Amino acid sequence: MSFKSLLKALPLASVVFAISVQADEGMWQPHQLQDISAKLKEAGLSLDPTQMENLDQFPMNAIISLGGCTASFLSEQGLVVTNHHCAYGSIQYNSTEKNNLLEQGFVAKNLTEELQAAPGSRVYVTESLTNVTDKITGNIASSIEGEAYFNEIEKNEKRLVAECETSQDYRCEVYSFHGGLEYFLIKQLSIRDVRLVYAPPSSIGKFGGDTDNWMWPRHTGDWAFYRAYVNKDGKPADYSTDNVPFKPKAFLNVNANGVEENDYVMVLGYPGRTNRYRIAQEVENQFNWVYPTAKRYREEYIDVIKNTAPAGSEARIKYESTLAGLANYAKNYGSMIESFHKGDMLARKQKELKDLQAWINDSKARKAKYGKALTDLNALIAQSQHQQERDLILAYITRTNLIGVSKRLYRLAHEKTKPDSERKQGYQERDMNRFTQGMKRVNRRYDADVDIAVLTHFLKQYAQFPAEDRNETFDKFFELDKGFNAEKLAQKLTDMHSKTALDEEAERLAWMNKSVDEFKNSNDPYIQFAVSQYDNDRKLEKADQELSGKLAQARPAFMAAMIAFKQSKGEPVYADANSSLRITYGNVKGYSPQDGLTATPFTTLEGMLAKYVAGDHEFDLFENIRTAIANKDYGKYYREKVKSVPVNYLSTLDITGGNSGSPTLNGNGEFVGLVFDGVYESIIGDWDYDTKFNRAIHTSVPFMLWTMEHIDGAGNIVEEMTIVD
Amino acid sequence: MSFKSLLKALPLASVVFAISVQADEGMWQPHQLQDISAKLKEAGLSLDPTQMENLDQFPMNAIISLGGCTASFLSEQGLVVTNHHCAYGSIQYNSTEKNNLLEQGFVAKNLTEELQAAPGSRVYVTESLTNVTDKITGNIASSIEGEAYFNEIEKNEKRLVAECETSQDYRCEVYSFHGGLEYFLIKQLSIRDVRLVYAPPSSIGKFGGDTDNWMWPRHTGDWAFYRAYVNKDGKPADYSTDNVPFKPKAFLNVNANGVEENDYVMVLGYPGRTNRYRIAQEVENQFNWVYPTAKRYREEYIDVIKNTAPAGSEARIKYESTLAGLANYAKNYGSMIESFHKGDMLARKQKELKDLQAWINDSKARKAKYGKALTDLNALIAQSQHQQERDLILAYITRTNLIGVSKRLYRLAHEKTKPDSERKQGYQERDMNRFTQGMKRVNRRYDADVDIAVLTHFLKQYAQFPAEDRNETFDKFFELDKGFNAEKLAQKLTDMHSKTALDEEAERLAWMNKSVDEFKNSNDPYIQFAVSQYDNDRKLEKADQELSGKLAQARPAFMAAMIAFKQSKGEPVYADANSSLRITYGNVKGYSPQDGLTATPFTTLEGMLAKYVAGDHEFDLFENIRTAIANKDYGKYYREKVKSVPVNYLSTLDITGGNSGSPTLNGNGEFVGLVFDGVYESIIGDWDYDTKFNRAIHTSVPFMLWTMEHIDGAGNIVEEMTIVD
Repeated sequence: MSFKSLLKALPLASVVFAISVQADEGMWQPHQLQDISAKLKEAGLSLDPTQMENLDQFPMNAIISLGGCTASFLSEQGLVVTNHHCAYGSIQYNSTEKNNLLEQGFVAKNLTEELQAAPGSRVYVTESLTNVTDKITGNIASSIEGEAYFNEIEKNEKRLVAECETSQDYRCEVYSFHGGLEYFLIKQLSIRDVRLVYAPPSSIGKFGGDTDNWMWPRHTGDWAFYRAYVNKDGKPADYSTDNVPFKPKAFLNVNANGVEENDYVMVLGYPGRTNRYRIAQEVENQFNWVYPTAKRYREEYIDVIKNTAPAGSEARIKYESTLAGLANYAKNYGSMIESFHKGDMLARKQKELKDLQAWINDSKARKAKYGKALTDLNALIAQSQHQQERDLILAYITRTNLIGVSKRLYRLAHEKTKPDSERKQGYQERDMNRFTQGMKRVNRRYDADVDIAVLTHFLKQYAQFPAEDRNETFDKFFELDKGFNAEKLAQKLTDMHSKTALDEEAERLAWMNKSVDEFKNSNDPYIQFAVSQYDNDRKLEKADQELSGKLAQARPAFMAAMIAFKQSKGEPVYADANSSLRITYGNVKGYSPQDGLTATPFTTLEGMLAKYVAGDHEFDLFENIRTAIANKDYGKYYREKVKSVPVNYLSTLDITGGNSGSPTLNGNGEFVGLVFDGVYESIIGDWDYDTKFNRAIHTSVPFMLWTMEHIDGAGNIVEEMTIVD
Repeated sequence: MSFKSLLKALPLASVVFAISVQADEGMWQPHQLQDISAKLKEAGLSLDPTQMENLDQFPMNAIISLGGCTASFLSEQGLVVTNHHCAYGSIQYNSTEKNNLLEQGFVAKNLTEELQAAPGSRVYVTESLTNVTDKITGNIASSIEGEAYFNEIEKNEKRLVAECETSQDYRCEVYSFHGGLEYFLIKQLSIRDVRLVYAPPSSIGKFGGDTDNWMWPRHTGDWAFYRAYVNKDGKPADYSTDNVPFKPKAFLNVNANGVEENDYVMVLGYPGRTNRYRIAQEVENQFNWVYPTAKRYREEYIDVIKNTAPAGSEARIKYESTLAGLANYAKNYGSMIESFHKGDMLARKQKELKDLQAWINDSKARKAKYGKALTDLNALIAQSQHQQERDLILAYITRTNLIGVSKRLYRLAHEKTKPDSERKQGYQERDMNRFTQGMKRVNRRYDADVDIAVLTHFLKQYAQFPAEDRNETFDKFFELDKGFNAEKLAQKLTDMHSKTALDEEAERLAWMNKSVDEFKNSNDPYIQFAVSQYDNDRKLEKADQELSGKLAQARPAFMAAMIAFKQSKGEPVYADANSSLRITYGNVKGYSPQDGLTATPFTTLEGMLAKYVAGDHEFDLFENIRTAIANKDYGKYYREKVKSVPVNYLSTLDITGGNSGSPTLNGNGEFVGLVFDGVYESIIGDWDYDTKFNRAIHTSVPFMLWTMEHIDGAGNIVEEMTIVD
């Protein structure tokens, strides 16, 4: 919207504002676009909203999942763009000490130079989304509840998935919406020959490192390119030199102009998880107990690792990614706690519940229909928090590698005694690829001394809990039932670690095919541990499932009330993120992180150079980019509005983890950037969207194209895409 | 300037910009205002610039010095406003455990309730500024140089000061400008009955504490009010209940509207010290060696104190202010090093020197006049840096209390053997008030264990220097000439500290009146130390004075060349700050601290409340202010432009330490705020003014008046002032 037209629109300002507030929040399912089509058009969408519901057509067919990240097709030759951090594993997988692609970057000059992505890499093209609520919960007898209800749902899900997955070319999944009010079956073509095409050096792709993570101002070139390959019949196939690029039904044109302040933008992708409809009691517990405690555990975890594995040691190198992950979420929780105490989310939640209750009580019919919903849910939530202190610390204790590894392996032996369709989800044949990858990954992140130190640290705290808040079977194995004895525990752990063979990859893979009896007869102390815990773990699991089954009835009832209440006020309701395909739309816009400061919506190459620190692992820059910036060698990517090449930009879009790698589109459905992060103040967005603070961070197209042409020598990839102005 | 008139002025934009760039840099002497009067008028000054040169008139007569800080008169009853941090000592002095004025704030409801300021407090009203260059250097024979030249200057200065200080009612000082090119004698009425009228609680006056120091966004109410008293004849007098408020010739009206973005503002005050004309060689040494080393020493100093005096201990409390000071400047140096490496000051300095040299070489006359200036200065600078490593570490070693105390006392005994006029500056009768205060202050900041630990820490490093880079006499006393022996040193220091009596106030004051022989015969180990060092210290001082004398000839020669060069380009030249009265003018304006961020020029009460942390010693707020903000109880101090009460604001003004407490004036000479700090990026401003980053921070008048009326119950003081709209 130009300055001139803004002036003309001024008398309508309040209306426009009301719409724009609505526009930013929400992760809409494709079938909901018809409900909000007027708003979409008004906000700036030129495409027909109903066309966007169609998964077979542009633009939806160009939006793909990598499992955990989003990506999109940028050419008819199956060229895929995603975030650098989403392709990180594949870049690392192809790196050697001599040829460090992470450090140096990589460009395939033609198809034959492309490299196999990391094992297990997939491109998932969503082919259908079907409402299967009837088939999941519609046929369950009303007398069934608790664990039985839970089992019925799981059984129905597995059946639908099995029917859908006609071959390994497809991956199907049932997604629950609104806590189980609706279920959708999602069928995805699963392309398994994925190749690395182009990645900038980490000094561009990961510029700013952990320091800039979740931060603005930002200057990160967080992109990488893959290509999807299929066999000559166009079907998914294992890697083969005979394979050919996959031809998607749609791909995105790239708009070289990028975007300007206030422009309409939307993100199509697979956001992971949000908690926007949690009730006050859950919010209070989460922010006043769970996050503060988890933050402390993570900080202690970090301290223990650092003290046990000094900087520079072999062991430390193995734990760098664990440390980064721990720190990452400690920072994340810290931000959420901060925002929570500054904001009024809890008060609003409390008020909303009160208003909902009043609205229900206001009508006999509603009272009959929804009366029990809130009370039931409240009671179940209280029950679910009952043993949370024990559960949280045990979760941190079982994060240590061999505890978790041994339990998963023994569980597999048990599950394998059943027909595939009856096995627990995660232990079916269709899960074995991921299971194997997980078992292979262990060694790169494991050191016995660290593992022992972490176990000791948390066991000591755990042992202080009153006996009734502990796990008896667990205590017995570690002899904590006889009181905590640091010396004896150290002896036991050292002993276990010296005798176990689970720290060897081949051994772990071998255990994947052993019988329950072989486990029972094993002398491996970690196998013995797993065996000793099994029965009790199942008992706890059963109790969990009983509760989950009850929640799977209570939460939908509550959500039905909430949705009816909101619709009575004319508010369309979107579901919490659940890794299924969503659309969010809004505008390019800065914000004020605090009184006296404004975050402007664009950063520039000069700002990137200003952050440069020679030799720093987060802020180094190669000479070619430094020289190009110093000489203002910007070519056609110079943008007068920012007097430079725009690097990253902010928008009001409502995104979360899983949206990483999502394409950002303008109103014409043209590619105008990649979303890759949110600002620090928006981390709490997983619980509560605030128009004032919620901002997504995108890489700009001019920055991408400039880097490819002027810096990385990836002009061939620019050539392959369809660039529009 | 309104938005409308800005549009009209648009065709002139480039001209306006050129002027505005010039306007911001510069600390002008009053007599220079006629040179820049056109620019002042154009920038927005309504007052007649020549009127502002007159110290007898409004507004200059209203500008006063507190010695180290600036202040101004705000009523005809001698009401003085300055910064809270400038009156801190007086508020502390009147605080008791039961009646903690620092914490609770203080308001005198009438004259009789006013409290005596801390001993030694003064209000200095500048009465005359006289160019005395002829009397200082004009009569020195051209054959005289080095130490003799230094002594001549000192002798002439002392004579002029003695002639000027006709009674204790006056304080006179000779100030050197441009490194000795010009000298001015400044005569100030010295009012010695100063009383505390009003101070907000520290949670307003020091809000943000050390964390926010040098930072934006800022929300500090950094003001306090004094009153100057004289006897019934209107003459300065010691405190007496018979004294009456001083009637200044001028006072400032207070503009309740305050300022808006882009408004013309000026600050009149006593900026302490800048180094804008240092040559490249000095800059390089300062930023690549002095600041990094001093920063490291300070950080080590902090560590040693913290390790020796654990948090909460008696000793730690005594060192809190020392710690704050050390950290303060470590942060200051860190900022300067950062800015230095980001900017291009050194390259510009080098280019300027080259250009100057070329301009000199371009003319025979200039070559004859200025040819040697640069070479001479360069050589002397190199010489002055010769023993800087030794000098810097010894400076940190003698910061520890008893080393410095004993030396100053013994020096005093020696100086007292001479007639007063021949004594070293700092040891004359006129200096004895300050000297005594210094001796009294020691105990509040002294702990033997800490003193020993600090000495040990630095002596160990010092002992690693090669013998030729050490001080032989010093080494001998501490037996470092026989190699460093940690155990023996610890023994010696413990011994000295247990035997010395200098840690008692009465003892120190007694030594102020003892003879050289009494020192020589003393058994006090610290007195013995001072005696042992004396002769060698004088030798070193002589060498220093020899160098200073040479520099006092070389630097003016260089500055004469530089000034002529700049004037040839039409650039008016201001002198480095030297604690004399200056004017700086510019505009209210935000800035971009980094790419992607804008500091907006105003903060608001809502931002202050957002920083509130209950019980935090830096970010606590009393309930009355929290409630008033939450209820938006803003009365007539609400400003539509910021939709709140503006708290602090930014300007482009060129200020430095010593400007603290300076009034900020609008174009009519009305009081529109108090300057109290600069932003982090402008700390390097002492060396280099950058229009892009140099911003001063002011408290706004609406915030002051609102706090006085709505929060602190100080409406009587608002009443006393002349408020205009």
